[in-house]
Amino acid sequence: MRTQVAIIGGGPSGLLLSQLLHRKGIDTIVLERKTKEYVLGRIRAGILETGFVELLREAGVGERLDKEGFVHDGTVIAYDGAQFEINFTEHTGTPVIVYGQTEVTRDLYDAREAMGGKIVFNVEQVEIHDADSDAPYVTYTVDGEEQRIDCEFVAGCDGFHGVSRQTIPLSVRKEYEKVYPFGWLGVLSETPPVCDELIYANSDRGFALCSMRNANLSRYYIQCSLSDSAEDWTDQMFWNELKRRIPPEAAERLVTGPAIEKSIAPLRSFVTEPMRWGRLFLCGDAAHIVPPTGAKGLNTAGSDIHYLYHGLLQYFQEGDSEGIDRYSEKALARIWKAERFSWWMTNLLHRFPEQTAFDLKMQRADLDFLRGNKAAQSVLAQNYVGLPY
Amino acid sequence: MRTQVAIIGGGPSGLLLSQLLHRKGIDTIVLERKTKEYVLGRIRAGILETGFVELLREAGVGERLDKEGFVHDGTVIAYDGAQFEINFTEHTGTPVIVYGQTEVTRDLYDAREAMGGKIVFNVEQVEIHDADSDAPYVTYTVDGEEQRIDCEFVAGCDGFHGVSRQTIPLSVRKEYEKVYPFGWLGVLSETPPVCDELIYANSDRGFALCSMRNANLSRYYIQCSLSDSAEDWTDQMFWNELKRRIPPEAAERLVTGPAIEKSIAPLRSFVTEPMRWGRLFLCGDAAHIVPPTGAKGLNTAGSDIHYLYHGLLQYFQEGDSEGIDRYSEKALARIWKAERFSWWMTNLLHRFPEQTAFDLKMQRADLDFLRGNKAAQSVLAQNYVGLPY
Repeated sequence: MRTQVAIIGGGPSGLLLSQLLHRKGIDTIVLERKTKEYVLGRIRAGILETGFVELLREAGVGERLDKEGFVHDGTVIAYDGAQFEINFTEHTGTPVIVYGQTEVTRDLYDAREAMGGKIVFNVEQVEIHDADSDAPYVTYTVDGEEQRIDCEFVAGCDGFHGVSRQTIPLSVRKEYEKVYPFGWLGVLSETPPVCDELIYANSDRGFALCSMRNANLSRYYIQCSLSDSAEDWTDQMFWNELKRRIPPEAAERLVTGPAIEKSIAPLRSFVTEPMRWGRLFLCGDAAHIVPPTGAKGLNTAGSDIHYLYHGLLQYFQEGDSEGIDRYSEKALARIWKAERFSWWMTNLLHRFPEQTAFDLKMQRADLDFLRGNKAAQSVLAQNYVGLPY
Repeated sequence: MRTQVAIIGGGPSGLLLSQLLHRKGIDTIVLERKTKEYVLGRIRAGILETGFVELLREAGVGERLDKEGFVHDGTVIAYDGAQFEINFTEHTGTPVIVYGQTEVTRDLYDAREAMGGKIVFNVEQVEIHDADSDAPYVTYTVDGEEQRIDCEFVAGCDGFHGVSRQTIPLSVRKEYEKVYPFGWLGVLSETPPVCDELIYANSDRGFALCSMRNANLSRYYIQCSLSDSAEDWTDQMFWNELKRRIPPEAAERLVTGPAIEKSIAPLRSFVTEPMRWGRLFLCGDAAHIVPPTGAKGLNTAGSDIHYLYHGLLQYFQEGDSEGIDRYSEKALARIWKAERFSWWMTNLLHRFPEQTAFDLKMQRADLDFLRGNKAAQSVLAQNYVGLPY
């Protein structure tokens, strides 16, 4: 088989790139290790930066999002038993949109299928060959048969554990990592959200987040020990602990119900450099991970797709390689700022086992300053809605 | 002897409080362990917040400062071989004033002497008694003779090593501290400053600061190991190392000369709570220390004096104890923000032995974000010129 861009990974990054390129007449094939149902079963965050929403509209998948997504003009930050709001729209002129990653992915699958996009599921033993030459190709097996795709470029959208990053030799690749000494225990429940905005809560007992998917689907998180397992936490234990960590007026309003999903996620910051090696480009989780505080995961993937899409367009339409040559530099400049923001939000809101009394006072002073200072609120708001591409 | 307010410590805090109160007809006696010449021989920073300058003017010691002080509308931040400026006046409407702490102290002594203020030098064995009663008194010896001052209040302006803080029982007192794993090697030289603004430099080799006292008196600092001693560093070694840490265009311009003073200062963040115990009030270094990055040392002392002065006025003039009752709370709210800022500036600009590759990237991303974001610059500018009292 031949294609212009072989895309490894059928999550939102790979699908979005495929969709954007297809609409400009550039041919792609998407390879996915799992099934569509498996991909759509993954529960992920759902706060979309406006820049990312624009990109989804450009890909022709903005319709349901524009209808069903919730506009959030701000967020609530709680600490010391009280709370304050940071208004995004006031500070930046733009809100964020709450629309689950699962829904984004579903819309992208629908659009790909409607356009006859080529997606191969259940692929195994994917290998990227000669990425540093002018004639790269990808091999894989499906139903036990070996296949080969010759292509001009490979987009590695296959996540943290995928083969794409591993394809770049260690002599070229530099990795940066911070592993946080706690996890997030998340619960999804068919209950009305406690607040029409997100509540990020710093409490003596650890972080908590009140979030939502829609008017009757709430998503709550509490910071937990990495040695906990989700089964250790009964629903009642979870709700009790959540109530202790959020402001009293929120705790009183909280509607609880059975957890329809409950899981623990570790928190990690990770970046690999460079994000391009020859004709292979890394996008999204294949190149970087953020802790979920600040909801940058999907949005940083969107940022990569933005730069790669425009770079590939410039190459295929104008024969100019400037965009792809500078892909790594441009993508990383924005990624590091999103990493900084996510790291800062994580530091601001969690309890760390090694925190000294002085460190706790610095965290508290940061919150006090943020509560009272418009410029500090603007910094948070600008980062939250997404820095310019 | 009797006085209304016994002031322990004849540095700028104690002198300023004495001067302000005297002008309102409130009697004070200042006790100083050393001589005036010793106090004036201490080399300290010289960046004054405008709020502090206002307070000096109110104390009647603004004249020489207004004539000889240098107005700094901004500062330069250098990293990665380049530099950018943050304009304070543009962001906050106000500059800072460069005028050495030694000069402030000299002006205060002159003013105190002109008004016949009572300052006792060379006091030994100072003890504060019954601070938690309505009749506190202070004992000390001078020339071997024991003396006693009965008073209504005691202001502890006697620095980090003074007796005032130690007078507050440990059962009441809580101390917060961070000791940084490096020092500042400072050189004073009779050379024209390399730049008409301060240059704060982050370099691979560690922090450097280009500062000045006047048109022919420069003050430079470089981050050094705590195991170094000033004698290890010849003038030539110092200038060579400084040049390696500042942007090339500054290094080229740098005029070097003999060091007329050379010393190493450790960096520490320290706060004690509460700042009031009964009729004893702690001010300045007696209650808190900041690392010098951001030049908050003298300014935080000024902030305490502002709150204590107004609290005492309210008490003596209106018989209302609200101001002194809330002294600790008000002073600490502002102190913790200054501590946060000094800690953040220190983290932003120094190399730490324990920094990981990821930590260095976060520092770099913080600098990149600051360089490009107006709101982040405003946050720095507002903190640098001083948050509102």
